[in-house]
Amino acid sequence: MAKKIIVIGSGAAGMSAASSARAADPEAEITVFTEDRDVAYSPCMIPWVLEGKSTWDNMIMHDPAWYAKERNIKIITETKVESAVNDRAKDGTVTKHVVAGGVTYEYDSLVLATGGKVFIPPIEGTTLPGVFTVRTVKGGQEIEAYLKKSQKIAIAGAGVIGLELALALVNIGKDVTVIEMMDQVIPRIADKDMAEPVQKYLEEKGVKFMMKTPVQGVIGKDKVEAVNAGGVECPCDMVVFATGVRANTDLAKELGLDIGQLGAICAAPTLQAYKRGRLCPDIFVCGDVLQCQSAVYDGPTMSQLGSSAVKEGRVAGSNAAGKTLQFGAVASPWVSIIGDKQIAGTGMSLGLASWYGVNTVTGKATGKTRARYYPDGKELTVKVIADKLTHKIIGGQILAGEEATGRIDWITAAVISGMTAEEFLVRAENAYCPPTSQVRDVVFAAVENLVANLQ
Amino acid sequence: MAKKIIVIGSGAAGMSAASSARAADPEAEITVFTEDRDVAYSPCMIPWVLEGKSTWDNMIMHDPAWYAKERNIKIITETKVESAVNDRAKDGTVTKHVVAGGVTYEYDSLVLATGGKVFIPPIEGTTLPGVFTVRTVKGGQEIEAYLKKSQKIAIAGAGVIGLELALALVNIGKDVTVIEMMDQVIPRIADKDMAEPVQKYLEEKGVKFMMKTPVQGVIGKDKVEAVNAGGVECPCDMVVFATGVRANTDLAKELGLDIGQLGAICAAPTLQAYKRGRLCPDIFVCGDVLQCQSAVYDGPTMSQLGSSAVKEGRVAGSNAAGKTLQFGAVASPWVSIIGDKQIAGTGMSLGLASWYGVNTVTGKATGKTRARYYPDGKELTVKVIADKLTHKIIGGQILAGEEATGRIDWITAAVISGMTAEEFLVRAENAYCPPTSQVRDVVFAAVENLVANLQ
Repeated sequence: MAKKIIVIGSGAAGMSAASSARAADPEAEITVFTEDRDVAYSPCMIPWVLEGKSTWDNMIMHDPAWYAKERNIKIITETKVESAVNDRAKDGTVTKHVVAGGVTYEYDSLVLATGGKVFIPPIEGTTLPGVFTVRTVKGGQEIEAYLKKSQKIAIAGAGVIGLELALALVNIGKDVTVIEMMDQVIPRIADKDMAEPVQKYLEEKGVKFMMKTPVQGVIGKDKVEAVNAGGVECPCDMVVFATGVRANTDLAKELGLDIGQLGAICAAPTLQAYKRGRLCPDIFVCGDVLQCQSAVYDGPTMSQLGSSAVKEGRVAGSNAAGKTLQFGAVASPWVSIIGDKQIAGTGMSLGLASWYGVNTVTGKATGKTRARYYPDGKELTVKVIADKLTHKIIGGQILAGEEATGRIDWITAAVISGMTAEEFLVRAENAYCPPTSQVRDVVFAAVENLVANLQ
Repeated sequence: MAKKIIVIGSGAAGMSAASSARAADPEAEITVFTEDRDVAYSPCMIPWVLEGKSTWDNMIMHDPAWYAKERNIKIITETKVESAVNDRAKDGTVTKHVVAGGVTYEYDSLVLATGGKVFIPPIEGTTLPGVFTVRTVKGGQEIEAYLKKSQKIAIAGAGVIGLELALALVNIGKDVTVIEMMDQVIPRIADKDMAEPVQKYLEEKGVKFMMKTPVQGVIGKDKVEAVNAGGVECPCDMVVFATGVRANTDLAKELGLDIGQLGAICAAPTLQAYKRGRLCPDIFVCGDVLQCQSAVYDGPTMSQLGSSAVKEGRVAGSNAAGKTLQFGAVASPWVSIIGDKQIAGTGMSLGLASWYGVNTVTGKATGKTRARYYPDGKELTVKVIADKLTHKIIGGQILAGEEATGRIDWITAAVISGMTAEEFLVRAENAYCPPTSQVRDVVFAAVENLVANLQ
């Protein structure tokens, strides 16, 4: 009999899981439940669509009809899974089903890709018309519609989504203020010295910033009229919360799955969930709801990135269909393109390292993305971070006018192989051609500086 | 007393060695001998200067006066080192000197950075006016002058320098034919399937190719009038040999140093040379004259790249001044920018693997450099090669419209860490932002294909 596989969630993780399950088992009955209206898109695209660089239609790669026809995957949209059961009674009978829209669906394997919820601080006024989050196409379209009657926009949170959105909105003529609790943009994953040039660039483009300022309330009668920013009432027409994502563990808790210290679901390398310390053979976890293992620190970490979600979904979905793939520990490389600036990072920032109790030494260098004698080279600053005890490279950050992505992937590969700074200088290599790199890439200069500082 | 360090050769390796020796020892007397007129430039720039994208002045970063003033390094240009001695007599007396321009110079440490000579096949007519190689600024300027009275240009050799030059010359209106002995462009380091699109692109740009055709002679009375290409007389005004580089081991042989099976100088990881199997404590080797160790095969390889030369020079020069740095085994990543096409590679090509007796399995995938829904993404084809026995990734090649360099450096890092194809899928990660990558980069798709083919 065909295996019944149920996937809950239609984000990058869920859809990747469903497609991978199909690739692994051509016969399985695969059903995806989602509260969303749309599937198979990258929410990271939303700022660019709002700016007019792409369209909603374009950013949605496939619709449920396509999945039904091409991949024989049934997608039930705009439907909340109300409950999920996975119980083994003393007499050996196993009850495995979910309930959605009042209907009970049995499963053999369950993939939890329930994602995250944008964290909205527990303050007044967040349900007023004019308050938004950046998470779904539907939400993006609501922002687009509301923008037509809005001029002054407050964005709560200076993470990469907040900043990308801020630039998109000033580019279409809006008056944008970013309100951030911390004293730097891109807090947590970028260091202050690397993040400051991005803030300065955005200020030159017209974005205003209120730093070290918590959003303490949204003010308005029938709709947003102002925001309380650290006690100051700032008039605005809209507030967008880009204040980070919390794992959505409601169903996991109902299923009795083990939740880790970071508030997300624990899983084995096969991405099987645990229940009271024992592996669940038939529940798999992927996406923003998963607690990962760190590749640079012997402990848990979160990796709420689209790239991680797709990779996790592939493992969870394949294994739900009977394979035994593994998902490794993560360095979680990220990159954000903010106008002419690219900022990228991998592994631990100084802030994260300090949080985890790691003593650090840093190296930094500045140069060009191209040979100095080749025209139009862009600025390139590379920072690398080592563990002071082991000399291993545990993180890196790049600020560049171009080609940050490949370089951060390169540093990531060094980080996950556990290379020390000294070993990097002995063994690492870079390809050279005048139009795309210096003969000795700036990454090397940064590591040389790191090795000098380690001595 | 100040240590006397002599560097022979002023290419990327020699100048990197001299500067690194200075950084390691502020007091040393450092002298560089070179037959060249200019120093401190990247010969890889020559095609772009001939095309007018940069100038000779621009591509020379510093002149000897700058080195004298800023780094206290004496450079003796246009001077051949006639002989070199490093002898220990039975009574313990040590004779260490070089002779140049009839003058004897003693040294404490000697750095051999004698580079390579462009291999010109032993055929008739190669000394005629109108025959050139692409190796020095002076040679480049001679090409530039001769181009003024030349329309039909034959380039012998379809390696990356030959192809970059061919495109530069058609771009300034010349009639260019590339003559290649093998049945593909970029033979040896690129596989035929990856190289063919580059040839096709160049053909569309107007470059003509004669493949599987050896250059058998240069024809002319007082200057080049034609080239004998596989027995066919092809009229032309100029012939440029871009037929590869052979290590220039004349002085090494005179010094009695061990020459390896690939015809270049053997050295330890400290880049100290050997003499009859014993380390020479005071002779260091770097650049095109060095025989390297392969990072993917337990044996020797050549790495005649500017990036390798700079890295080796840093080690050889520092150690000549008393440090104990090491130079690791090489994967030798390379990249060539040919108009709108970028081609890059690392580790072993199929041809090299077969030469070394390695059984291979390949994986290949095609996609875009950006998210599919972000505008202006360029084509991206990635090929990865594994050792069939160990499943280790031993090479990769990329053909792309942009951003090949960082991706090949990423694959290189995986290769030198000895990662298997299966482990890559478990542990590797890529940063994602719609304008610079797919959420799961094409590199992953290629490795997935590789893993499927390994099963």
